[in-house]
Amino acid sequence: LKEFDIINHFFKRPSLSDSDSLAIDSDLKESVVKSIGDDCAILSVPDKHHLVLSMDTLVSGRHFPDDALPAQIATRAFCTCLSDLAAMGATPCWFTLGLTMPQADIKWIAAFSESLLGIAREYQCELIGGDTTQGPLTITLQVHGVVEQGKSLRRDQATVGDRVFVTGCLGDGAAALALINNEAANNTIEIDDKAYLEERFYCPQPQIQSGLKIVNHSRCGIDISDGLLADLQHIATASEVSLEIDVDKVPISMACKNLVGDTVALSCALSGGDDYQVAFTVPESHLLSLGKLIQDESIVATEIGRVTCAVERDNDYNVRCFRNGEPVMIDDVLVDDKGYQHFAS
Amino acid sequence: LKEFDIINHFFKRPSLSDSDSLAIDSDLKESVVKSIGDDCAILSVPDKHHLVLSMDTLVSGRHFPDDALPAQIATRAFCTCLSDLAAMGATPCWFTLGLTMPQADIKWIAAFSESLLGIAREYQCELIGGDTTQGPLTITLQVHGVVEQGKSLRRDQATVGDRVFVTGCLGDGAAALALINNEAANNTIEIDDKAYLEERFYCPQPQIQSGLKIVNHSRCGIDISDGLLADLQHIATASEVSLEIDVDKVPISMACKNLVGDTVALSCALSGGDDYQVAFTVPESHLLSLGKLIQDESIVATEIGRVTCAVERDNDYNVRCFRNGEPVMIDDVLVDDKGYQHFAS
Repeated sequence: LKEFDIINHFFKRPSLSDSDSLAIDSDLKESVVKSIGDDCAILSVPDKHHLVLSMDTLVSGRHFPDDALPAQIATRAFCTCLSDLAAMGATPCWFTLGLTMPQADIKWIAAFSESLLGIAREYQCELIGGDTTQGPLTITLQVHGVVEQGKSLRRDQATVGDRVFVTGCLGDGAAALALINNEAANNTIEIDDKAYLEERFYCPQPQIQSGLKIVNHSRCGIDISDGLLADLQHIATASEVSLEIDVDKVPISMACKNLVGDTVALSCALSGGDDYQVAFTVPESHLLSLGKLIQDESIVATEIGRVTCAVERDNDYNVRCFRNGEPVMIDDVLVDDKGYQHFAS
Repeated sequence: LKEFDIINHFFKRPSLSDSDSLAIDSDLKESVVKSIGDDCAILSVPDKHHLVLSMDTLVSGRHFPDDALPAQIATRAFCTCLSDLAAMGATPCWFTLGLTMPQADIKWIAAFSESLLGIAREYQCELIGGDTTQGPLTITLQVHGVVEQGKSLRRDQATVGDRVFVTGCLGDGAAALALINNEAANNTIEIDDKAYLEERFYCPQPQIQSGLKIVNHSRCGIDISDGLLADLQHIATASEVSLEIDVDKVPISMACKNLVGDTVALSCALSGGDDYQVAFTVPESHLLSLGKLIQDESIVATEIGRVTCAVERDNDYNVRCFRNGEPVMIDDVLVDDKGYQHFAS
């Protein structure tokens, strides 16, 4: 099985814009001028839009278990990468795939490509190129989206007085990893909770639709896949503000609490990472309109804190935790390492 | 050494557009809205231009020797990837890097990043994002360029009557590989030839400047890194034409001939691959103007054949070789495999 055969047989599909069953934004209908099959893909970015893009690499045995199924790997790779587009408030358009495999195992490739193209189709994101090579199993995805000029959610746009929100529930990612690695304390978890958590790990739902709504009420957002506190710190540093978080307001699923207990669950939610939700800040003037979206269940989001300007030392912008209005030491609520760090010592 | 430290210390640099010493196209001056440091890079594609992009993965021990120096790996990775932009006639703009390394070896990373950013700067191509992970050494690059709408060089645009040209010399890539792997017959190669060939392997020169000139005289081009005949076949298939090549006109360097002898050199030039030159077709109406560019040494290119419509069997578009006007069997001039194929059986 040669590289061209693999690409043509498993990865080359009709353009999504030719599909009758998908309602593609008219701006994007003709965005793929040339897909797989030339030296480069040729693409058209709609007028008055910016291109946004993000690359993620997943290594077998590090970012997913060696025995993960190809469908699980594909879905996780795509969803985690797409989460970066969600956090910019972007519309997904196209993606590229760097697929390195030890051998050309047809069954594996068939399952992988079917899942990958299936989940990508759900998000109307078209595979337009990449590279297939032989080597240790490694998957690199780059996702590309568009956002109206000046409307993307950036880390450096938080303003004093903004409220801090997060989408969905936090802690599920870390709890799911403990479950998958058989490291959870509670072995008697209910089947529903188990299924829910495994779904969070292998099929985290990128908050694309939320992001597209958030851009109308916020200028500042971040993907919190490295852990809430670690990623909020990026907002603090980039925006030169401090943030105060009420730890009791952080939304945590019952499944997470059931699996690891309340204390560890909070720790997972604050620093476990792997959640692929979006934290964003909302100015007071938009609180009402965002509140309506939440009330209508048009978006699932929870207010967890606010942006302050308090600077403790020169150039020291911080994320601080509170409980019942009193400051709590972060070390007192964390039972695990802070944020996921590759090459951590 | 944590991921953020690696990125901040070794890969994050001031924007190229802020450099006084580079004359960046004014359209592209403001193209990087947000570089490394957010969930996504934010980019601006100039009006009336298409975005073109290509991803390449290089695996240690497969695409470069395990003992290759970090500077060699960086340069080769960047140059081979950029060659795809050259073959579209595009202006390089930005690139992303997926870097997977067994460990965070500071000396290695310093040498790698310095070379990578150095060569990228030469081509005015800015690093705007990527991912750094731990695992077997694998490098994925994605390069992004822009080209005026409708002017990119495509495989499917060859027309009957066009002449076929190639830039530079062919065969050097394969000869250099034989040299590096100590598989060349001739051990007494001169130092100059050795240096020239090693340079071709580790620092192939992407034909960006040639590509930017070719777009004014051609609609059809291809990067011939998989081997001339294999890649011309892609033009034949995509454009639904046949091509005739005069094998004696194929440009081959003296260093290549000196190392492997005339017969093997021709074989390397026709099918060895790894040359990173551009093959393109030129309609008769543009032969004079292209000829002038060649005469002025504004571009190095050689006419090697023409596009015909002769179809031997239904839907069978072919590349055929000629010598002194007589057809020759490709098998008679090839002494090695056809084109580079991953996962070849």
